[in-house]
Amino acid sequence: MAAKRQLKLGFMLHGNGTGWGDWRHPDAVPNASTNFPYYKRQAHIAEAAKFDFLFVADSVFITAKSSPHYLNRFEPLTILSALAAVTDHIGLVGTLTSTYSEPFNVARQFASLDHISGGRAGWNVVTSWLEGSAENYSKDQHLAHDTRYRLASEHLDVVQGLWDSWEDDALVHDKESGVFFDESKLHRLDHKGEFFNVRGPLNIARSPQGQPVIFQAGASEDGKNFAAARSDAIFAHIDTLEAAQKYYADVKRRAAGFGRDADTVFVLPSARPVVGSTKEEAERKYQEFIALTSVENALSLLGRPFNDYDFSQHDLDAPFPDVREHGANSNQSQSDYVIRLAHSENLTLRETALRFATPRTDFIGTPEEVADAFQRWFEERGSDGFVINNSLPNELDVLASEVIPILQKRGIYRSEYEGETFREHLGIPKPINRYTAKTLAQAAE
Amino acid sequence: MAAKRQLKLGFMLHGNGTGWGDWRHPDAVPNASTNFPYYKRQAHIAEAAKFDFLFVADSVFITAKSSPHYLNRFEPLTILSALAAVTDHIGLVGTLTSTYSEPFNVARQFASLDHISGGRAGWNVVTSWLEGSAENYSKDQHLAHDTRYRLASEHLDVVQGLWDSWEDDALVHDKESGVFFDESKLHRLDHKGEFFNVRGPLNIARSPQGQPVIFQAGASEDGKNFAAARSDAIFAHIDTLEAAQKYYADVKRRAAGFGRDADTVFVLPSARPVVGSTKEEAERKYQEFIALTSVENALSLLGRPFNDYDFSQHDLDAPFPDVREHGANSNQSQSDYVIRLAHSENLTLRETALRFATPRTDFIGTPEEVADAFQRWFEERGSDGFVINNSLPNELDVLASEVIPILQKRGIYRSEYEGETFREHLGIPKPINRYTAKTLAQAAE
Repeated sequence: MAAKRQLKLGFMLHGNGTGWGDWRHPDAVPNASTNFPYYKRQAHIAEAAKFDFLFVADSVFITAKSSPHYLNRFEPLTILSALAAVTDHIGLVGTLTSTYSEPFNVARQFASLDHISGGRAGWNVVTSWLEGSAENYSKDQHLAHDTRYRLASEHLDVVQGLWDSWEDDALVHDKESGVFFDESKLHRLDHKGEFFNVRGPLNIARSPQGQPVIFQAGASEDGKNFAAARSDAIFAHIDTLEAAQKYYADVKRRAAGFGRDADTVFVLPSARPVVGSTKEEAERKYQEFIALTSVENALSLLGRPFNDYDFSQHDLDAPFPDVREHGANSNQSQSDYVIRLAHSENLTLRETALRFATPRTDFIGTPEEVADAFQRWFEERGSDGFVINNSLPNELDVLASEVIPILQKRGIYRSEYEGETFREHLGIPKPINRYTAKTLAQAAE
Repeated sequence: MAAKRQLKLGFMLHGNGTGWGDWRHPDAVPNASTNFPYYKRQAHIAEAAKFDFLFVADSVFITAKSSPHYLNRFEPLTILSALAAVTDHIGLVGTLTSTYSEPFNVARQFASLDHISGGRAGWNVVTSWLEGSAENYSKDQHLAHDTRYRLASEHLDVVQGLWDSWEDDALVHDKESGVFFDESKLHRLDHKGEFFNVRGPLNIARSPQGQPVIFQAGASEDGKNFAAARSDAIFAHIDTLEAAQKYYADVKRRAAGFGRDADTVFVLPSARPVVGSTKEEAERKYQEFIALTSVENALSLLGRPFNDYDFSQHDLDAPFPDVREHGANSNQSQSDYVIRLAHSENLTLRETALRFATPRTDFIGTPEEVADAFQRWFEERGSDGFVINNSLPNELDVLASEVIPILQKRGIYRSEYEGETFREHLGIPKPINRYTAKTLAQAAE
């Protein structure tokens, strides 16, 4: 770790925001989510503001009832590769499901992205919580939650094993003798497990980072353990500092329990700042944003973690109905969150839906106030930084020009990139190749 | 089709060439195949020379005995997406195996590339002939040749069906009313077949080309039928004009037999031009190139289509041995080719191996002579154009500056791109969405 702890910032690229009505904002570009010049412009702003990374979310199943940002968007590996070509420093984190992908293909694509970008690739490992996903992949049924995590762990074993197929100095390239590579430094994986049998080696050299950075977004018990054990950074949806502190302490404790240096596991909640020149302007912008989402859309969104449960059959202004059973097979952490939220504040169905669709956070106010909130979460150990998840179309520009400079002046955020690779931005070392390590250990005996 | 038939040119990007010793050339950049600036520079030269497309080959299995260009290279979708961001016109064709991929992922990645590039994506559908591939994908065994082609055909059905999930005008984006899309123009595929069950719809809008361009490289009976029935362009390895004419006539006849306009199915043999200011300089360059490949390497390469058969156990200077049985389960079209070549010219094993590793073609000579050969193949219906598959490191520069201008002056090759999309370069229309077509047909009744 660097001597002084620094705030880490990621920017979530999604064209328009993840709110149901974000595309309706007067300044929104409705086709932004498949608009490459739009993505490129945002990447350039984020890089000029020295963000650690860009983050692309994903899902692999839609219906006509899905929210707009699910319906039509770039596939993560392709858009990140395109952005790699037009940026120089910023990390590139892509979401990809372990449940519906082949480890050999995943290992290759992220290694290739790491080579193209000069060491800036990150994989956000997800297990796909949408039941219907199985139907797009010729599967009889979606795997149960704990099975998905067991599979994810083995999948990651395979991918990380394949990334070590070639030792760093395996490619000798001796033109004179005709020796292209050192055979003793190319390794088969020969993985045989519960879900995968993969021989290897991978058909691409070890990439600049050795191992691309791993993200996870664990919220369930399985998820938190997987994230704490295996990831370099954890992305989380948390609304209050108090909840964030609890989550932060929990994850760091688990990481230490797995024998890891907890300081190298970054907890990065999503943040949706709304910045105004005055408190009132910020509040006005926030209310504008809320008004973009209709209660019908909010109800549809609320239904997702409950297996697309139809909430419109209930009285909007009665207390939140008892629908626990509908959440059991779907995304348990999200459905639990909704139920807790509704009960803890005695919300009606309407209030619950609108709060879930457009969560209010600490990050609404003047540039100074938003910077204060970032600093408070950071210093009071609610987070190591944030993944900025904007809904308002021009908020990245405002953040970059008005909030970032304050954080830089306060000495908690970089003014220049420290190195070349994403690992160097995070201050985590390039892992030594497992076979090289073994050779070194044997030599030392 | 355009009024006047024009030569179509693609450039195969592979860092160093596909010859075993290409990386040993004094001017070769040994790490070229994972060197993004190198790829970018070649893409810019090819685009300045108005090439129709860039082509990226692929495979998904290596051993320590594999040739250098198999061992370490970019994954096609990632490198093509990166190149999409730094080019404006040139088509981007990526190889991807139908045997070891999920149609939902394939459809998404090519549609995403088509959006990123403004309509320049192409998919070269391959079925993976290397036996070992199965071992990288948790499969008990590699599928038989005819099964692979049956699967490829169904895979392509699914991918092309998913590409039509959204009609062109489905995304309404009406901010006032809050209508994001027209539900009647979003379609589930609900494919149920022998190999795949895929519900859909795809989570990305119909792409600029509607349907990305399809390439195939059919050489076997199954392969030629699949290519003639389903592809827009056919990539082939053919050494002589006579063989090319036979292949060309065969494929065009098959295409017509499938009810297609044979003029819209482009036959594009690979060509490895070696250009010199004099005939002697060209010959010297060719001999330099041949000398880079050792006979040991040539024997290894020869073994590949024969299930990695070890030819070194035979007398190098005796007639080519009888090893027909070893080719049966592998790439039959390549092993048949080798056997035919050896028998028709009474070659020794050494001669066969060197000819297979470094085939001599018609395209060796002065710029005028190489242009003549291109024109002869084109006008005498051996081809509709070529995929340039260079081995010498600077040959693209020479081709662009010395041969292309001759073809342009002769009026058989473009001086400016005709349109924006790859389909427009080829002169093939954007297919109407299948559901839109159905609606129009019903309205006309």
